[in-house]
Amino acid sequence: MGDIAPRLSSITGASTKQINILLINPNGTSSMTDACLRSLEPTLPPRITVTGFTSPHPAPSAIEGHLDGVLSAAAAIRAVAPIAKDYDAFLVACFSAHPLINALREEVTGPVIGIMEASLYASRMLGGRLGIVATGARSKVMHEDAIRQYGLEGFSVGCETTGLGVLELERLGREKVLGLVGDAAGRLVLDKGADCIALGCAGMTEMKIRCEERVDSRAGMAQVVDGVAMGVQFLIGLVREGHVTAKGGIYRSAADGREARGQDWL
Amino acid sequence: MGDIAPRLSSITGASTKQINILLINPNGTSSMTDACLRSLEPTLPPRITVTGFTSPHPAPSAIEGHLDGVLSAAAAIRAVAPIAKDYDAFLVACFSAHPLINALREEVTGPVIGIMEASLYASRMLGGRLGIVATGARSKVMHEDAIRQYGLEGFSVGCETTGLGVLELERLGREKVLGLVGDAAGRLVLDKGADCIALGCAGMTEMKIRCEERVDSRAGMAQVVDGVAMGVQFLIGLVREGHVTAKGGIYRSAADGREARGQDWL
Amino acid sequence: MGDIAPRLSSITGASTKQINILLINPNGTSSMTDACLRSLEPTLPPRITVTGFTSPHPAPSAIEGHLDGVLSAAAAIRAVAPIAKDYDAFLVACFSAHPLINALREEVTGPVIGIMEASLYASRMLGGRLGIVATGARSKVMHEDAIRQYGLEGFSVGCETTGLGVLELERLGREKVLGLVGDAAGRLVLDKGADCIALGCAGMTEMKIRCEERVDSRAGMAQVVDGVAMGVQFLIGLVREGHVTAKGGIYRSAADGREARGQDWL
Amino acid sequence: MGDIAPRLSSITGASTKQINILLINPNGTSSMTDACLRSLEPTLPPRITVTGFTSPHPAPSAIEGHLDGVLSAAAAIRAVAPIAKDYDAFLVACFSAHPLINALREEVTGPVIGIMEASLYASRMLGGRLGIVATGARSKVMHEDAIRQYGLEGFSVGCETTGLGVLELERLGREKVLGLVGDAAGRLVLDKGADCIALGCAGMTEMKIRCEERVDSRAGMAQVVDGVAMGVQFLIGLVREGHVTAKGGIYRSAADGREARGQDWL
Amino acid sequence: MGDIAPRLSSITGASTKQINILLINPNGTSSMTDACLRSLEPTLPPRITVTGFTSPHPAPSAIEGHLDGVLSAAAAIRAVAPIAKDYDAFLVACFSAHPLINALREEVTGPVIGIMEASLYASRMLGGRLGIVATGARSKVMHEDAIRQYGLEGFSVGCETTGLGVLELERLGREKVLGLVGDAAGRLVLDKGADCIALGCAGMTEMKIRCEERVDSRAGMAQVVDGVAMGVQFLIGLVREGHVTAKGGIYRSAADGREARGQDWL
Amino acid sequence: MGDIAPRLSSITGASTKQINILLINPNGTSSMTDACLRSLEPTLPPRITVTGFTSPHPAPSAIEGHLDGVLSAAAAIRAVAPIAKDYDAFLVACFSAHPLINALREEVTGPVIGIMEASLYASRMLGGRLGIVATGARSKVMHEDAIRQYGLEGFSVGCETTGLGVLELERLGREKVLGLVGDAAGRLVLDKGADCIALGCAGMTEMKIRCEERVDSRAGMAQVVDGVAMGVQFLIGLVREGHVTAKGGIYRSAADGREARGQDWL
Repeated sequence: MGDIAPRLSSITGASTKQINILLINPNGTSSMTDACLRSLEPTLPPRITVTGFTSPHPAPSAIEGHLDGVLSAAAAIRAVAPIAKDYDAFLVACFSAHPLINALREEVTGPVIGIMEASLYASRMLGGRLGIVATGARSKVMHEDAIRQYGLEGFSVGCETTGLGVLELERLGREKVLGLVGDAAGRLVLDKGADCIALGCAGMTEMKIRCEERVDSRAGMAQVVDGVAMGVQFLIGLVREGHVTAKGGIYRSAADGREARGQDWL
Repeated sequence: MGDIAPRLSSITGASTKQINILLINPNGTSSMTDACLRSLEPTLPPRITVTGFTSPHPAPSAIEGHLDGVLSAAAAIRAVAPIAKDYDAFLVACFSAHPLINALREEVTGPVIGIMEASLYASRMLGGRLGIVATGARSKVMHEDAIRQYGLEGFSVGCETTGLGVLELERLGREKVLGLVGDAAGRLVLDKGADCIALGCAGMTEMKIRCEERVDSRAGMAQVVDGVAMGVQFLIGLVREGHVTAKGGIYRSAADGREARGQDWL
Repeated sequence: MGDIAPRLSSITGASTKQINILLINPNGTSSMTDACLRSLEPTLPPRITVTGFTSPHPAPSAIEGHLDGVLSAAAAIRAVAPIAKDYDAFLVACFSAHPLINALREEVTGPVIGIMEASLYASRMLGGRLGIVATGARSKVMHEDAIRQYGLEGFSVGCETTGLGVLELERLGREKVLGLVGDAAGRLVLDKGADCIALGCAGMTEMKIRCEERVDSRAGMAQVVDGVAMGVQFLIGLVREGHVTAKGGIYRSAADGREARGQDWL
Repeated sequence: MGDIAPRLSSITGASTKQINILLINPNGTSSMTDACLRSLEPTLPPRITVTGFTSPHPAPSAIEGHLDGVLSAAAAIRAVAPIAKDYDAFLVACFSAHPLINALREEVTGPVIGIMEASLYASRMLGGRLGIVATGARSKVMHEDAIRQYGLEGFSVGCETTGLGVLELERLGREKVLGLVGDAAGRLVLDKGADCIALGCAGMTEMKIRCEERVDSRAGMAQVVDGVAMGVQFLIGLVREGHVTAKGGIYRSAADGREARGQDWL
Repeated sequence: MGDIAPRLSSITGASTKQINILLINPNGTSSMTDACLRSLEPTLPPRITVTGFTSPHPAPSAIEGHLDGVLSAAAAIRAVAPIAKDYDAFLVACFSAHPLINALREEVTGPVIGIMEASLYASRMLGGRLGIVATGARSKVMHEDAIRQYGLEGFSVGCETTGLGVLELERLGREKVLGLVGDAAGRLVLDKGADCIALGCAGMTEMKIRCEERVDSRAGMAQVVDGVAMGVQFLIGLVREGHVTAKGGIYRSAADGREARGQDWL
Repeated sequence: MGDIAPRLSSITGASTKQINILLINPNGTSSMTDACLRSLEPTLPPRITVTGFTSPHPAPSAIEGHLDGVLSAAAAIRAVAPIAKDYDAFLVACFSAHPLINALREEVTGPVIGIMEASLYASRMLGGRLGIVATGARSKVMHEDAIRQYGLEGFSVGCETTGLGVLELERLGREKVLGLVGDAAGRLVLDKGADCIALGCAGMTEMKIRCEERVDSRAGMAQVVDGVAMGVQFLIGLVREGHVTAKGGIYRSAADGREARGQDWL
């Protein structure tokens, strides 16, 4: 086959585009935001800057349900709107179909994605069945509903949970937490047939390596997908190709409507 | 809000990873492969090399249906398998659920995606309803079947066609073709409510600008998605995060099976 | 058949249960809330009290998209939570899968429903195909997404719009508005085959009669469903049977979580 | 928040509408009909009369499958048609997508619902995942098929069975039956994640309290839904709002057709 | 390739199995039954006997809706049950998901299929998109519901109607009817993209040739499927392979249940 | 009821049509082809000839995944195309949504079906829930994906596997293999509620009897469906009724396109 290689022509890139991404942690716990930034650093290419944003008071300190979702979205969007023009794209770093995602799409220009959808699409590209490591019984049902709303229930084996709350993940002994996350990932692969595991929480970002050991990721048997990392990479790609959020359909800005009816506040 | 900005911390990337992507045109027409490469050049970042591969004889010179899909996949994979180890990721540059995609996932290590799925996932990230500019009545039904198999029919307004065959796109006068593609895109947006348009053919890559003019893309109303460009960008992201194709599920290699039963050919 | 009648035994009710329902208009326009109350009065049975609640500042003055949904939900729930113990059930009077619905289900005890889901379930009980009279192109797509998420897309013929904004419905000449709503309803029935029409806006409540004239409702051909009215009736029924929102699944209150992590605010 | 309360205006109902509902037990066992009436009495409001109807011979004495469904529907509708004008609404008290439901919708004026659909819609209003306590392996599959046909499979955890036949529920010792029903309900909640339990048989109406004890209903964790009770309540609401069955679509009466072709019998 | 042919081995059948099929027209109009038999004769192989059965009084003389379905099923099954042992398989010759189909499956031993499902499965074997020629607006919605319940909505372009009632098809001038059926078939193929047309009525059996002329069936562009013919052929195949209706699941006979509770009538 | 029988009229067939069916084993192992032919012989009617075709080199010797599917399809279709005119219909004897099926539909005139779809449709005619006996973890996921693409996931209980590879089925001791297949079938019926079992491999054709013993098939509780047998029977029926593959939609031949662009090879 050596005589085929010479016929192949190649191009190598030289784009010097600068890209600024805002990573938005909708809850008010800045240590999670910092952990996300640290986890991104080793794989980020030059000229890409990721800025971490933590929702201001009165955002809840963690997001466990629909109420937390609403309150964190309201807090985040009021604080992000004035600075949005400085960023090319926006990542919502909460593993859910968080209401901030679509609200931001209406108010900002650049692309917006959530870490759950980033995980789901990456898993679809890499394997045949995806599973989620979730943190509790309620998030399990919410995750399954979200997967169905994204249209991907046919490719999902569901969720396995650690039984831990969002903040327990930081408070418990690190080894204990790593073990429980690994157990859940193992059940998804061995018992349920997943070949891609989505880490169902932004706070789990740094556990990726341990989890990969458990599901034989080095041998390529299963992939462990970190939505924070893949979300940033997908946004980089969308911005490189000049994409912005489409504003002619469901993400039409409500700014004109507010002005028309004399609403001068957000 | 000026007092929020100082609290935001940032990281800027410095990864010097080299990434080699093989762009595989499953049909045997090298001018299409070359057109794809040219279209990619302006937005490709440094250290990323994309190599164009055109399927050798007896691959069909264009792909119009299932038979062409099978014959082009067989020709491509036999030629790609021996050189696959030189590449980190693989793009199948035919706008369909081409059988080469899954076949490659079994035989190579790196991630593999097709330009149709890349277009669909990008459209899901950017808007609420996607439509496809397709080249003929048969591809219309095949595209709708593929969208349903990807689970995304709930977000699709369907296809509009130019009425042209794959090769006519090159042979007809350029202005005529551009006009017909623009008309189809216009119908998808204005009549059917799409806010994202996927270009349903690798041969259409260079028509993106004209098409964007038609659907008011500069004002951000609708996005025109080129699956070749977005496919390369998604692969770059997957490789940066260390991902390979998951081999523990439906993409398990058949190499062991061949050896076990004494099949020493591919 | 007269000899069957004597064999039939009957019971007649005598329950004197008092029921208090809070009708929550998530936007800040109290005239809409008042219109809803007025429309309910003629059909409300004794011992049922419906109290109108209008979201306080900074709730948006109308709800046109996702952002308005989030901001109105946040404003409403902070104001409703302290008074929720005085009510047996809660109606969210915005025609959408409004984020307030699920957030309330976590925080209050009694049943909570939205006027969109009330319209959909009533339409399923009364006919074979439902359609929605919607107010604009964006709400059309959002309504179709919501119908799919409720699982009812198989019974829907989609939406027809008046082309009016939420507030225009009040500002335009009454006859003009009635005519446009009637036209949309007529298209749903005659062109698309709907036999049930859901009024896609709480502000349309008083237009029910005109709309019914158009679709031959008196002859029983099609039913026009007002989600405000049916929502209140369904809540009455749920409360009469002693039901509250189930708190063991996705509607588990986050109050324990807040306390555990020291969050003393909402 | 005390200063919000004074701004809230309220209305209290005064409708003196009389409503007559026919509760139709499609099988021929009148003790079940009587049990249904008894269970309804405590929560029924004034001016609402529910009349119990038991299908005459040759209706089967219980309904276990499709054949029983057809024969009971034929017997019921011939006997109900002549007296239908005396009733405002009709409840089909067999937990299934019983063929009588749609047949009645063609022949009578008022709304018609079945106790299964009433249970499903009530469960959707109250929780996130519903489950059914079914009586045998066959009804399990039939119930799952019906849930899918109603579009609600995405919200269902399936069925758990008591292993009892319809009539065994009356014949076995009461304590034994209550225990088995409770066990099935417990499995649905604890093992499968349901937060709403539908009682899959009209004969189970009086077991609601025992079942609620088992699934922690008093603490609001799960709701046990009795389709007979909720069906009557939903019908009351539909009638209060002036609704009848829509006759312009799939429920068009076949009476004109019969006359046109000279069929003078039913 | 001539050197391949010699390597191919063949078998030729010699089974002398006699097969008796009961074609059940659920309505009471025997001329339709006779028309079905006549249409079957030319293509029926030796040793296959098809016996026509017309439902006895009080079956309706045509089937237009749910009520007719129930009454015709009850009349048919009581008359068929005593003679069922003489037949190997049963065809329900009403184009719908007729309730007789499943009721028969519980009571008889041999396979049972309806002409609608036979048409749908044949269409799936022969083409990519199926459409139905239906007789009226109501049957249109009922047919679409049935297609969805069979799981095949993804392959359907829907229905086009002649505007004729079931009996008008016999009474109108033959040429007029043929023309209207042809027009409907033409719209399905040319406007909606169907390549398979199901004749939506047993009374249309003899119109197949005219319809085929219209949709270019001789050139193989579209296939016109007659459910009566294909239903008989599928039943022949099932019986040849020794199949009977599976009785361990939803088609379990209710005979044991009847006996257990002392019900000595059907 | 004896007075009904005399009124029944019957027809008995006399068609002497000769039908030639090509059974195509896409892999290169002729012993499997021969086994298929042997299994067909007892039930094949007169004048029906089935010819066995084994794919020539370089077809893989067994088909375990997507790559094998592509390579076997390419080998088969190049060899079948020149002899296709001698056959009336074509069976693809690989239990999967094999790419050869649709490719053949484009190139040949007669009907083409695969043994998986034949099994699925037969199972739908005979029972309420189908299950597949599959040969390994990968085929399990592939089978589930295929069932979903055929639209039939609502009727499937999934797959149970023997843990054996395709060729192991021939190499292992016959009794051992029969036992494992029976175990898998037993789990599908007893644990998962299937009443129809599809044999998920053409190599299993002769195991039907053993499998039937296990699932109580003689008593009619469950049916074991052999896709090779039912596929041949369905093709016979389609050919008897004069059907060919519809060529106006997705199965349009690419021959014109090849000629137009000067491609003189396949």
